[in-house]
Amino acid sequence: MNRLLALIAASLVAAGTGAALSAGADGMDPSLEQRFDAGISSSEMSDWMKIMASEPNHVSSPHDKANAEWELKKFKEFGWDAHIEEFQVLYPTPLAETVELLGGKKPFKATLQEKPIKGDTSATAKDKPLPAYLEYQGDGDVTAPLVYVNYGMQDDYKALQRMGVDVKGKIVIARYGAGWRGLKPRLAADHGAVGCIIYSDPADDGYGHDATYPQGPERPPQGFQRGSVVDMTLYAGDPLTPGVGATKDAKRLTREESPVVLKIPALPIGYGDAKVLLAALGGQVVPESWRGQLPITYRVGPSAPKVHLMVKSEWSLKTIYDVVAVMKGSELPDEWVLRGNHHDGWVEGAADPLSGQVALLEEAKMLGELAKQGWKPKRTIVYLSWDAEEPGLLGSTEWAEAHGDELKQKAVLYINTDGNERGFLDVAGSHDLEHFVNAVARDVNDPESRVTVGDRRRAKIRMEALSPSSHDPSVVARLKDQAKTAADPSKDFPIDALGSGSDYSAFIEHLGVPALNVAYGDEGENGGIYHSRYDTWEHYSRFEDPGFVYEAVLAKTVGRMVLRASGSDLPIQQAWNFAATMCTYVSELKKLADNKREAAQTQGKMLTDRVFEISADPTKSHGDPTALKPVPAIDFKALDAATDRLKASAKAYDDAFAANAASLSADRKARLRELMRSIDQTLTPEVGLPVRPWFKNLIYAPGRFTGYGAKTMPGVREAIEEERFDDANRYAGLTAGALNAYSDRLDQAAAVLAGK
Amino acid sequence: MNRLLALIAASLVAAGTGAALSAGADGMDPSLEQRFDAGISSSEMSDWMKIMASEPNHVSSPHDKANAEWELKKFKEFGWDAHIEEFQVLYPTPLAETVELLGGKKPFKATLQEKPIKGDTSATAKDKPLPAYLEYQGDGDVTAPLVYVNYGMQDDYKALQRMGVDVKGKIVIARYGAGWRGLKPRLAADHGAVGCIIYSDPADDGYGHDATYPQGPERPPQGFQRGSVVDMTLYAGDPLTPGVGATKDAKRLTREESPVVLKIPALPIGYGDAKVLLAALGGQVVPESWRGQLPITYRVGPSAPKVHLMVKSEWSLKTIYDVVAVMKGSELPDEWVLRGNHHDGWVEGAADPLSGQVALLEEAKMLGELAKQGWKPKRTIVYLSWDAEEPGLLGSTEWAEAHGDELKQKAVLYINTDGNERGFLDVAGSHDLEHFVNAVARDVNDPESRVTVGDRRRAKIRMEALSPSSHDPSVVARLKDQAKTAADPSKDFPIDALGSGSDYSAFIEHLGVPALNVAYGDEGENGGIYHSRYDTWEHYSRFEDPGFVYEAVLAKTVGRMVLRASGSDLPIQQAWNFAATMCTYVSELKKLADNKREAAQTQGKMLTDRVFEISADPTKSHGDPTALKPVPAIDFKALDAATDRLKASAKAYDDAFAANAASLSADRKARLRELMRSIDQTLTPEVGLPVRPWFKNLIYAPGRFTGYGAKTMPGVREAIEEERFDDANRYAGLTAGALNAYSDRLDQAAAVLAGK
Repeated sequence: MNRLLALIAASLVAAGTGAALSAGADGMDPSLEQRFDAGISSSEMSDWMKIMASEPNHVSSPHDKANAEWELKKFKEFGWDAHIEEFQVLYPTPLAETVELLGGKKPFKATLQEKPIKGDTSATAKDKPLPAYLEYQGDGDVTAPLVYVNYGMQDDYKALQRMGVDVKGKIVIARYGAGWRGLKPRLAADHGAVGCIIYSDPADDGYGHDATYPQGPERPPQGFQRGSVVDMTLYAGDPLTPGVGATKDAKRLTREESPVVLKIPALPIGYGDAKVLLAALGGQVVPESWRGQLPITYRVGPSAPKVHLMVKSEWSLKTIYDVVAVMKGSELPDEWVLRGNHHDGWVEGAADPLSGQVALLEEAKMLGELAKQGWKPKRTIVYLSWDAEEPGLLGSTEWAEAHGDELKQKAVLYINTDGNERGFLDVAGSHDLEHFVNAVARDVNDPESRVTVGDRRRAKIRMEALSPSSHDPSVVARLKDQAKTAADPSKDFPIDALGSGSDYSAFIEHLGVPALNVAYGDEGENGGIYHSRYDTWEHYSRFEDPGFVYEAVLAKTVGRMVLRASGSDLPIQQAWNFAATMCTYVSELKKLADNKREAAQTQGKMLTDRVFEISADPTKSHGDPTALKPVPAIDFKALDAATDRLKASAKAYDDAFAANAASLSADRKARLRELMRSIDQTLTPEVGLPVRPWFKNLIYAPGRFTGYGAKTMPGVREAIEEERFDDANRYAGLTAGALNAYSDRLDQAAAVLAGK
Repeated sequence: MNRLLALIAASLVAAGTGAALSAGADGMDPSLEQRFDAGISSSEMSDWMKIMASEPNHVSSPHDKANAEWELKKFKEFGWDAHIEEFQVLYPTPLAETVELLGGKKPFKATLQEKPIKGDTSATAKDKPLPAYLEYQGDGDVTAPLVYVNYGMQDDYKALQRMGVDVKGKIVIARYGAGWRGLKPRLAADHGAVGCIIYSDPADDGYGHDATYPQGPERPPQGFQRGSVVDMTLYAGDPLTPGVGATKDAKRLTREESPVVLKIPALPIGYGDAKVLLAALGGQVVPESWRGQLPITYRVGPSAPKVHLMVKSEWSLKTIYDVVAVMKGSELPDEWVLRGNHHDGWVEGAADPLSGQVALLEEAKMLGELAKQGWKPKRTIVYLSWDAEEPGLLGSTEWAEAHGDELKQKAVLYINTDGNERGFLDVAGSHDLEHFVNAVARDVNDPESRVTVGDRRRAKIRMEALSPSSHDPSVVARLKDQAKTAADPSKDFPIDALGSGSDYSAFIEHLGVPALNVAYGDEGENGGIYHSRYDTWEHYSRFEDPGFVYEAVLAKTVGRMVLRASGSDLPIQQAWNFAATMCTYVSELKKLADNKREAAQTQGKMLTDRVFEISADPTKSHGDPTALKPVPAIDFKALDAATDRLKASAKAYDDAFAANAASLSADRKARLRELMRSIDQTLTPEVGLPVRPWFKNLIYAPGRFTGYGAKTMPGVREAIEEERFDDANRYAGLTAGALNAYSDRLDQAAAVLAGK
């Protein structure tokens, strides 16, 4: 067995890729994965989804609790040691709400309920769906003119300023897209708006994409997107208990004290209703990129007729139910391989989250099956079905916070899913697991293309570079680099960095547990019913993964990750890819600072020369942009030195691993594991990020102004973007320090491997 | 007087800008331009537009001829020696036409007439407007499934190939935009389509931009864009008489022999009708960039119900009427300053072309006035009101061809306009006139911004670089360079190169007469009624140039150009800007070849690796792209040497001009003029461009696949783009040869200036 690993390791070195855990490696039974696959049943997953998606299952709904209990029973049936862990969290529910247009040509009131659709379970479900609602909006009763703010992101407010339009005292209407939902009302409030309406434009989410449900997969005019608007960029989890588990006796903030609960009322509506509101807007015609696909002239407003927006909620604490299932490791019970997916949805939640949840259950079934056949994981496996992800990652965050110290001691990695559909493998996460991911992707076949899911992913990466989704030169350059890497079979295909938006956040960003998020997608049609009552089993079966084919592929993919990570007694990290990626990030930071410096200079000269004023159309309101701060020199020397060192340490570690890991004594192995298991925690020093110290990871974070989208080396990157240049210099040093600590560990581990 | 010029020349040298003709220079009365301005009357131009736009005035309409006769009378009143020159040209007119959807849910027939609008002259005009029509389409009666081809440009057909959709035997429907109208049916026919429908999408041309007429300026659902679909990229003018004037006895091709007349039927429709046709399409959903703003799911087709398209025309020769007005030069009668604008429109044609035409008339009035006051131009001035521009630049081209030899001997420059509206000065043309243009722009004030029109243009150029209209990196880079230049007051602001689409084409591209096209625009709202019956005096007065303010600015701008060019006995070219621009073009060519080479390599490897196939969605039809040809090394040495030499020669010439032009003897001045008057003809060797030798200019041409858009150094650029690499090498040499001939002239002229 050791010989086998040595052979594999040697071949990996030949391919220049360093350490990895492959099928059958490290003493694992080579037939194990085949046996695992053999029991994966698409029809079973379909049946389970039908059960779990039979009623609305948002937090505090009866069916949400019932699902947790049903899953608990399932885990026990599969032979797992399972229990439900409860937390008490702030979770408002709507009591009353209104969106109406006053003084328009005819009276108009928005429909804040979605009609059932005949022939779909959403029509027959006994429990009523949650009406239009944005979790943790601020309640209120406001009447004001309306202003259209496009996607309601930072750049949109800059454009408004150039148009001479102010949202102070107004209600804004923003369309979904371009950034996380929660940023829209937050930025609106920051700019003085008194209310916020968010709608789904058919260009982004409706007939623009395809026929609407039930004729096609897309959002019908009456469909709207529920969701949370908690300020997740400050901290995740229960708004009242930042940093600690929301147990019964936890010390709590009041709702008013909580900095993450919005202060203004906000509601989502469908484009059927939005059309009426948007058509009532006067003022300037919007810039071209602000137009949607409604058959109207999009104007910025303000509207002459006023809009009345009222939301009233019930704000008591509610109980949430995390299901925790444990399969104890035979050799390393105190090393945990964690794997989770949430079970709460907004309505029936078939695609989101149950398509990920039933794959998780299917894996649990097969792991139980293998255990019954006599297989035992070396490491402990913990399967987690989270509650309350939708309102703001509450189930996972409260659990991670409640068990933080233990997780820092024991967690090897956390694998997350949160929905799945037909298409391409998409993995994001810690780059020291990139090689681990590649090894798995090499061993799973894609049912459509008949190549491996890894090779299909490579093809996808190469296609993306050919027609980039963004014109941002830095994105275009990154895609091109990634395509080059993906085209080289001797290299691993790159995985993306994690931002936020699902349950990995507390693990990777708060605790420093390396994490992966896994999904198939891009060929299904999930977008159109996202967070609506039309996210049903029927919709999923017709449009997202007919035959539950990619559900099986997902279970096989994540199953392999769990089998390999839990079946080994060696570290799962490979260091080179992480080091190379860090070098890329530092290059990006330098480029960012240079571009920003040039932009500030150009704009400064344009302001001096009155270029904005001279070129403005005097028949329209307009304003100068806010002057950009001049960008001082930023000291990248420490980061340059740290990445240079990291590359050297990474190569030394990977080489030593390949040469010696297989023949290591048990004692040295233990020391090696001890060093490497928590190596990613070197990236999460206590200081955390500027403004938001809950986020401790200096390499990966959700953007303060993107929400879902990752910002890498965020202490530096966002400081440059946000003109906090002192922070930029300070965090350049701190980030370099974190990388040096990572290198220290690698050096120590390499010494152990070298027998020193 | 000579002293004055010497002083001005010296100050110009100090500013580093070389030779120019400024107000009051070269013996001109400094008060002349003030007196010219003083008589410019906005209300008079408004009255004249009302008269000329009172009835439809397309070629062969009674009012078109009446306008020519009315203008002739006007010129004579103004004191000019004027006459009408006639040509006999092919000009079909519609007899019968149909667009209908067969076998749809309900019978549908497109409306091919535009409704009158109450309160607008278009409602009261006695003559009926031309129905929906595309001049020089091919007639026919076809019934076939419909395919949507987006803008119907080359890239769209590449995308169709990737979608696995073929237009062979189909009727295509293309939307207006992204390239010249005439390319759409031509490319459709090239790909085997049997008919072509072109419509105006509201995203590009309708409510997407603003409210529709009469509530706002934009195209109403029933409005459509008429226009020519002759293959103007092969040669301009009468389809039957390429290269020669279409006089009564000219040798003619038959219609069937003419390579520029389309072989398939084609018609334009409005978006009200297009919606029905597009909604009938099945097949794949289109790529995102193909979507318009109709409230439908855009699909590529083919349609299950068939479309019936029928066009029948009357194909006889028609007479066209060019008005030619001459004011003889007092000293240099055989040096001609030409200035033109067409008078034919598609219906009333208020904006296009009459907004340019009435400014031309106003200039002619004031030149006549000045002459009556005793002023005399040194050079002869020729004012030209062209007929038949709309069908394909016929009036100007036939006249230029008929008088080609004389024009090559006598023409100093040709100044064109073709419509005007509120906004920014926009000049395109020969770069050796860039400095001349800048001097004029420095002396005209912008009524809105209260800076000069030149400074406002500079502001506009700088704004364009801030938010580029295209994401093409080469365009972005060019805009950035131009903005840098525009920000430097010691440099001239850059003018763009001329492509085609108006009457300058025969002059600059066929004869080598340097040319300028001048317009104000970008703040008016002309697009929405372009080539429709709603292009009326009412529309123009309300939306395009209320108060005819910019009409006056245009007359003052072009008036100055004419006064300065005709009032001087010195060359009007400055060489440095031309040389610098040529260097930019050569850099672009190198970059183009490099990018193309890299793209071919990347794509080649992707085809080998089956990346397109592996990444395709198997539930949708799809196809591989056509393999790009590998790009061989292209020899730019001759071009590099030629531009190096050109820079040296240009600097030497401009320096010598600044130092000595003012004190030159009459004899030397005559030799200098002789050399410089025809210097631009060194760029138009007899060989002409590949595929289309009518286009002789090796520096400026309309793109074979853009139509309006310029391609600079087209012999090389298009050869690289179109993978004709032998041509690329050959034309690199020929273009270098042309530049060397230009340098030869500069050297000779510099020698004359130096007294050698």
